[in-house]
Amino acid sequence: MTQAKDLTHLLSQEALSRNPSRLKSAFKYYSQEGMSFLGGGLPLPDYFPFDKIIAEVPTPGFANGIGAKITDADKTVIEINKRAHDNDPQDKHIELARSLQYGFTEGHTELVEFLKEHTRMIHNVPYKNWNLITSVGSTEGWESTLRTFVNRGDSILVEEYTFASALETAHAQGINTIPVPMDSEGLIPDALATVLDGWTGPKPKLLYTICTGQNPTGSSLSTERRHQIYEIAKKHDILIIEDEPYYFLQMETYTRDKALRESKKVHSHEEFVKAMVPSFISIDTEGRVIRLDSFSKVLAPGIRIGWIVGQDNLLERFTRYHEVSIQNPSGIAQSLTNGVLQKWGQPGYLDWLIGLRAEYTHKRDVAIDAMVENFPEEVVSYVAPVAGMFFAFNIDASKHPKFVELGSDPLKIELLIYEQAIKQGSLMIPGSWFKADGQSNPPQKHLVENPRTKTEFFFRGTYAAIPLDELKRGIEKFGKAIKIEFGLI
Amino acid sequence: MTQAKDLTHLLSQEALSRNPSRLKSAFKYYSQEGMSFLGGGLPLPDYFPFDKIIAEVPTPGFANGIGAKITDADKTVIEINKRAHDNDPQDKHIELARSLQYGFTEGHTELVEFLKEHTRMIHNVPYKNWNLITSVGSTEGWESTLRTFVNRGDSILVEEYTFASALETAHAQGINTIPVPMDSEGLIPDALATVLDGWTGPKPKLLYTICTGQNPTGSSLSTERRHQIYEIAKKHDILIIEDEPYYFLQMETYTRDKALRESKKVHSHEEFVKAMVPSFISIDTEGRVIRLDSFSKVLAPGIRIGWIVGQDNLLERFTRYHEVSIQNPSGIAQSLTNGVLQKWGQPGYLDWLIGLRAEYTHKRDVAIDAMVENFPEEVVSYVAPVAGMFFAFNIDASKHPKFVELGSDPLKIELLIYEQAIKQGSLMIPGSWFKADGQSNPPQKHLVENPRTKTEFFFRGTYAAIPLDELKRGIEKFGKAIKIEFGLI
Repeated sequence: MTQAKDLTHLLSQEALSRNPSRLKSAFKYYSQEGMSFLGGGLPLPDYFPFDKIIAEVPTPGFANGIGAKITDADKTVIEINKRAHDNDPQDKHIELARSLQYGFTEGHTELVEFLKEHTRMIHNVPYKNWNLITSVGSTEGWESTLRTFVNRGDSILVEEYTFASALETAHAQGINTIPVPMDSEGLIPDALATVLDGWTGPKPKLLYTICTGQNPTGSSLSTERRHQIYEIAKKHDILIIEDEPYYFLQMETYTRDKALRESKKVHSHEEFVKAMVPSFISIDTEGRVIRLDSFSKVLAPGIRIGWIVGQDNLLERFTRYHEVSIQNPSGIAQSLTNGVLQKWGQPGYLDWLIGLRAEYTHKRDVAIDAMVENFPEEVVSYVAPVAGMFFAFNIDASKHPKFVELGSDPLKIELLIYEQAIKQGSLMIPGSWFKADGQSNPPQKHLVENPRTKTEFFFRGTYAAIPLDELKRGIEKFGKAIKIEFGLI
Repeated sequence: MTQAKDLTHLLSQEALSRNPSRLKSAFKYYSQEGMSFLGGGLPLPDYFPFDKIIAEVPTPGFANGIGAKITDADKTVIEINKRAHDNDPQDKHIELARSLQYGFTEGHTELVEFLKEHTRMIHNVPYKNWNLITSVGSTEGWESTLRTFVNRGDSILVEEYTFASALETAHAQGINTIPVPMDSEGLIPDALATVLDGWTGPKPKLLYTICTGQNPTGSSLSTERRHQIYEIAKKHDILIIEDEPYYFLQMETYTRDKALRESKKVHSHEEFVKAMVPSFISIDTEGRVIRLDSFSKVLAPGIRIGWIVGQDNLLERFTRYHEVSIQNPSGIAQSLTNGVLQKWGQPGYLDWLIGLRAEYTHKRDVAIDAMVENFPEEVVSYVAPVAGMFFAFNIDASKHPKFVELGSDPLKIELLIYEQAIKQGSLMIPGSWFKADGQSNPPQKHLVENPRTKTEFFFRGTYAAIPLDELKRGIEKFGKAIKIEFGLI
């Protein structure tokens, strides 16, 4: 294994000007024998009111599914005391006297080591000096990525349709977001090459991609496309930022055949790990991928702990930023989340993720089944997602009776459908709301036409957030709205 | 009570360009009767592993002091369930199904309402439309304040000696930090007026001040100075950012008389509230104060919950920023901290703060007693702090035998003392390390000379972080170092 390439030339003005604190030079004396250290303003843990915290969580195996009500029989109790000597060393707890104190910007060692081991098992990063630090979630991970690499006025590359908040983060920082065309399988490598080969002026520093279970399109990049995109990134010396909240929400491919569904389920940890599409960081020989990871979709969003994986000398600049912004994720959240993970162990955590896969596969199947049954195939087309929380479906506006009358503008039909669906009692989000349009003052010359048909538009739905009967009803009502608008009923 | 003045002209380019998410327009249908909402990608709370969390904390009254070991007799147990219907409504808990979900960027209602009531009791903000939102601590509060008001290349005003990290935050953003002279009572209002009256070019947008128990000088602004500074801020249309982690670490004034010490203690909530110096926000008729508050010094730093108080239409811009950065403080931390505060109630929380005041007063007394006994008064002078975690003492370099020989540079003597003290086994931080020097490319014309003697320097010590016997020993050893260097032993 080799060292990562030196990519510090890609750092932003802001990241380059961050200095470590001078006070740090004094802290080397902190634990020196015989030293009375009156240097740092840390409160005494005696004054922390939390003496003990306890959490009740389900027990690995999760025999009745991860969403089952916890009973006394399958309950695991995590108990964390203020002082280390009151905790069982086997539990590898972060004692409250430490988690509630200042320090450990990168995250507490126990949690970071657990996540590193997990990362090794799943991604096996192919260079030596990779590292992992905590964030307060991938929203902040993305914000700090932009601060670390991009200057006001620079451009970045994004998927043609992408998470609106991610665009908003960039736009407020005065960054242009240049869309790269997608199809039903995600970002099109050739289109990325075309954008970059034809680029004039300062190159974009990075490509932002939600490569698995993409928001809003539900698409996932194939292994082949990932390799192609990585080669293009190398050629043009850009970073790839893989924002991967949905990575573990990968599923078996959709089938109508219920027996086949059953047979496709993964049963062992090995099968599960093998079933995962390779991440960008798993093929990153040069250290040009920054991976944004998070517990939000696998445990709970409100924990507000994420992590960033990348080469150590780039992550060091994130840490300098975190020192003067978030400092670190809440120590209470770290103690409890680490407590659960250590108790479950890596195998127990994989059990949980396998359980999650089963739940989302079933939800996706219910959603697609309902679409098959309720959407008129004359005008609606879609590819069933293989990851994430979202499904998208294309509607051919040209088949709408008023298409020409309304100026042959698919967005006018999109709006009609949106409003009709609300009237029918079903809400999904128009795809055009996610369109990356290059920001206020875009270098329009970098825009590349999407090769797809110009008369299609799409909607984003989710099977994540509502119970299955409500999901079915919602899709049925949406189907009715489409039929009404297209004069099919 | 009047409305705050419109101060939106002070917003930064970044803050002005933040847009609310278009998805929000869809969320108005979220709880509409009969609507199947397939719009938002929120995971089901069924999949949050935390079913119940419990914390053990001391019981108000805190008869044996806030640092006493908790016993079964004085233990309060906070228990928070996933589902609201499993919690006692009287407890005003934030149920886990909500705190572990996305949403509530401003902070959960229960916690925000508790903090608002607390703010009303202590600060009684004198205009109508003040508001309060959570942060992940005042480090982040300050970072987001700069992003909200200051552009790259702008200048801000800071205390001549100030928290090194606060300067670092500004410098990385390309902001010039112009020092305003201080004396032993903190920022000098006349000096502030001189800086601003003589200012040419774009005015600074804000003054950053740690006005109570200042870091590193330990000084606290008097009521009179606060009013003078507020008038200057009005005249020059600048904001005052009061960073107030130490506000509740105010103390009785130092006395050598041990009987008098006893008699000065506060005994009731009324006495306690009256003993507080008025904050800037308590005299802020125009809404030009942003107050950064935090649990870090009163409960524990690792909680990572702070709050920002100010006028609502300025705070709204912070919220837009938080939506695309931190989102909100950890829900686990919010549920537990709110759980404790609701259980204690406002009176119980005041009990805690009174207990904290007693602890820090005692620590301060021990430190100053030791300084009186060990520091040579021929060369050392100081004012005992009335707030905070820090004490500072001035040393007159001109009395050092090698002062002239070493070029009459007080910083050379400062370094000699620092190194000698380490040799003696005591570490405090040289004051020069905290000097605000205007940043890389400072508009030097704005610098105003400190009227104080040019041959003095100072050290910052803390009585917060170590046990009392170690504190005494550290001061004794530091005294010996001074005496050695000045040829007094």
